[in-house]
Amino acid sequence: MFWHRELIKFSTATKSKSTITKTLVQASLSHFSTASDPPASVAKPSGLGPTKPDEKPRVVVLGSGWAGCRLLKGLNPSLYDIVCVSPRNHMVFTPLLASTCVGTLEFRSVAEPIARIQPSISSAPGSYFFLANSTAVDTENHEVHCETVTDGTDTVDPWKFKISYDKLVIASGAQASTFGIHGVKEHAIFLREVHHAQEIRRKLLLNLMLSDVPGLPEEEKRRLLHCVVVGGGPTGVEFSGELSDFIRRDVHERYSHVKDYIHVTLIEANEILSSFDDRLRHYAIKHLTKSGVRLVRGIVKDVKPENLVLSDGSEVPYGLLVWSTGVGPSTFVNSLGLPKSPGGRIGVDEWLRVPTVQDVFSIGDCCGFLESTGKPVLPALAQVAERQGKYLANLLNKICKDGGGHAYGAKDMNLGDPFEYKHLGSMATVGRFKALVDLRQSKEAKGISLAGFVSWFIWRSAYLTRVVSWRNRFYVAINWLTTLVFGRDISRI
Amino acid sequence: MFWHRELIKFSTATKSKSTITKTLVQASLSHFSTASDPPASVAKPSGLGPTKPDEKPRVVVLGSGWAGCRLLKGLNPSLYDIVCVSPRNHMVFTPLLASTCVGTLEFRSVAEPIARIQPSISSAPGSYFFLANSTAVDTENHEVHCETVTDGTDTVDPWKFKISYDKLVIASGAQASTFGIHGVKEHAIFLREVHHAQEIRRKLLLNLMLSDVPGLPEEEKRRLLHCVVVGGGPTGVEFSGELSDFIRRDVHERYSHVKDYIHVTLIEANEILSSFDDRLRHYAIKHLTKSGVRLVRGIVKDVKPENLVLSDGSEVPYGLLVWSTGVGPSTFVNSLGLPKSPGGRIGVDEWLRVPTVQDVFSIGDCCGFLESTGKPVLPALAQVAERQGKYLANLLNKICKDGGGHAYGAKDMNLGDPFEYKHLGSMATVGRFKALVDLRQSKEAKGISLAGFVSWFIWRSAYLTRVVSWRNRFYVAINWLTTLVFGRDISRI
Repeated sequence: MFWHRELIKFSTATKSKSTITKTLVQASLSHFSTASDPPASVAKPSGLGPTKPDEKPRVVVLGSGWAGCRLLKGLNPSLYDIVCVSPRNHMVFTPLLASTCVGTLEFRSVAEPIARIQPSISSAPGSYFFLANSTAVDTENHEVHCETVTDGTDTVDPWKFKISYDKLVIASGAQASTFGIHGVKEHAIFLREVHHAQEIRRKLLLNLMLSDVPGLPEEEKRRLLHCVVVGGGPTGVEFSGELSDFIRRDVHERYSHVKDYIHVTLIEANEILSSFDDRLRHYAIKHLTKSGVRLVRGIVKDVKPENLVLSDGSEVPYGLLVWSTGVGPSTFVNSLGLPKSPGGRIGVDEWLRVPTVQDVFSIGDCCGFLESTGKPVLPALAQVAERQGKYLANLLNKICKDGGGHAYGAKDMNLGDPFEYKHLGSMATVGRFKALVDLRQSKEAKGISLAGFVSWFIWRSAYLTRVVSWRNRFYVAINWLTTLVFGRDISRI
Repeated sequence: MFWHRELIKFSTATKSKSTITKTLVQASLSHFSTASDPPASVAKPSGLGPTKPDEKPRVVVLGSGWAGCRLLKGLNPSLYDIVCVSPRNHMVFTPLLASTCVGTLEFRSVAEPIARIQPSISSAPGSYFFLANSTAVDTENHEVHCETVTDGTDTVDPWKFKISYDKLVIASGAQASTFGIHGVKEHAIFLREVHHAQEIRRKLLLNLMLSDVPGLPEEEKRRLLHCVVVGGGPTGVEFSGELSDFIRRDVHERYSHVKDYIHVTLIEANEILSSFDDRLRHYAIKHLTKSGVRLVRGIVKDVKPENLVLSDGSEVPYGLLVWSTGVGPSTFVNSLGLPKSPGGRIGVDEWLRVPTVQDVFSIGDCCGFLESTGKPVLPALAQVAERQGKYLANLLNKICKDGGGHAYGAKDMNLGDPFEYKHLGSMATVGRFKALVDLRQSKEAKGISLAGFVSWFIWRSAYLTRVVSWRNRFYVAINWLTTLVFGRDISRI
């Protein structure tokens, strides 16, 4: 109340203003004065040092995708101090990402904050989340080198620090493959992160509005409104389906001046949805074609700002180019001096350990079984990553309970059952009320495969129950409901 | 089904692949071939020409704020072709913008697409929405010059075009005042658009995470987590209140490592909430102080990347700086050769016409009564803009019904009652469950003024019923409910 009384005084007596203001400011901002601060705070070691034998051991997890987050969820915070290092503070619920590009779902509904997945990282004294990239792993000294993400902010320099680990789990994922094709990185948009979906949405709405401008040549209108998707895997097919549905339902109503100019083309070098049953693939092709998606078999050779060139020399003008041709090893993984699996991933044994060094594990799209295990490298799928995360959380909890939690503590320990992967099946939606569900364990095996409305219902229900928090389950349901009632949202924010 | 059959054939017979692919691609992309296009499409005049006497007259509205959108809503599309030119395709529900910065509301819930406010702009043949900035007004030729917004997209050059109008309404708003203080534009964030709120949110969450990094000096932690708000009007106060509530409710739970370092300071040169009743102001001061907001009276002299300098020479380090000191005439308004009101706004008469030229009107924050009308310039408030938009929509509909819709058609027409403004009162929230409602017509008048929970309830209900569409009303209610149940969302997307 002191300030308030002073304020009233000010409005009548302005004479002594500057002195009082100064006092007030000094009083208010006194916590900035550092003269009396002990120098200890600055002399601190820049990082987290090794844990002591009487302290909880520390697990460091690099990454916050399906693998890393499932691991974080399963780790027991009463056994370990948990540290997660990732350039994003949330997990992306990737199977629903395509729906956010056209406004069927809100961006927020597919992002799950890590602090909700493993609350101890924001509350336990020795557990942390660091918004940072890992730049190197020093397996000799059991240390990870990190650098903070500054995200273009000019007022903060990247801060380098080291974290000592007792157990390290590399779950940093893969990166989108461009197959060395020129111009992909510059002109195409991937569909792996929420900011990609935001960029696609902004560009789509921008092009819809720009094409309405008076006097624009017909050809330019067609180019602006030609949406090209390269890659016929589940992501490419789902995005094409959502897009054609958006065009038929929303563009026809809300952009009726330009509705005849907008088209979707899906380019694939081989077969679309190659992992699915033939019957389902045919169903998908039929349904996509009926929805107006042009399916083109071709190999992209070059990408220019306004068109792409196929290997037969034909040019395809585009206004929006989405690239979803799968993933490959990331620069970070390539830089690590660790053994590699076929395909260049981090090589692991049956217990997901990196066998040449102590206390290093790897899960998700960045790891693969070493050739010596005799097992095939598993596909880069959410369900593989999730199953590995769950397995490793249990393994690490067991190791700690058996007394091997600290560095070098699990050297000669019996780790129990190795990791076994059983494929549960695949799902993909192909537009409004239609989806594919393939419950066979492999392409050759027999089993249930469904297509149509029932699949679509299973697809939605399955995803709704797998979204991590109740909050997001609720939001996804509400989003689907409002899209059904009011149509998609078209504000470009 | 042709493509599908071909696809199946491909998987067994790859011999004839390239020829078939070429045929397919050519068939699929044939709409791009421009050789047979008539050259007429390119020779089109670049813009919308004057309307003919037997066509509907055209109203061109510049801007999509409170004034422009209320006007668009009220215009009768069976009387006029309606064209809106604005750099954003939605209206921002500004009173709720502060709530989106900390995740109480989603960004989408406060943005209303213009096509929902006036559906004819996306469906009627002669009505349009153009995502563009107006660069000049040629009152002689009844034309507006426009340039498309390209938003940093390198593949699209700005497209210049002209629109002929029968009636022109300038509702392009004002711009944030910086009072010529060095560094404000570069380092402070305003709070007027959705992208401002997004930037504030991203920076706040970035700073919260960066300050948790090991080894960071104490002083730097305090700086990163010092949120400074300059300007004690309703926006500044509401944002400070939301922020302190976010800190007390969410930071303490989800960022417990750094919770003692985060502080909010509100700097105001005069009195906070100066338009409110004294009793309400004291209540607000008491409540903000209790919530931990430091109130500082001071004048900002200079803004540097990491600290700002007050006029008494004291330096205030900050991590986030929000600037909300009111608005002034925009560069566009300054560039127009039209008469000006006191304060540099576009001068209008009692019927909101620009009296020196024909068929030009102005509403909202960009207009003010000419001195010759003897009326005071109205404050830059949403309720003024909204009332003016409503009045002018009725006036323009009346003019057209009376046969004066076309250019120069209303020259000597009797326009009926002039615009009269009656202030309905002011509202501001000061944090969780607390708000001020001042229903007096002016500072000197008597009337009802309330503070506390009842006001907060009135505030929420009033806003909920004023959000334009049912979709957004529903979303705002759902957002408030989930924030209450699950806490605020902290994912940084």
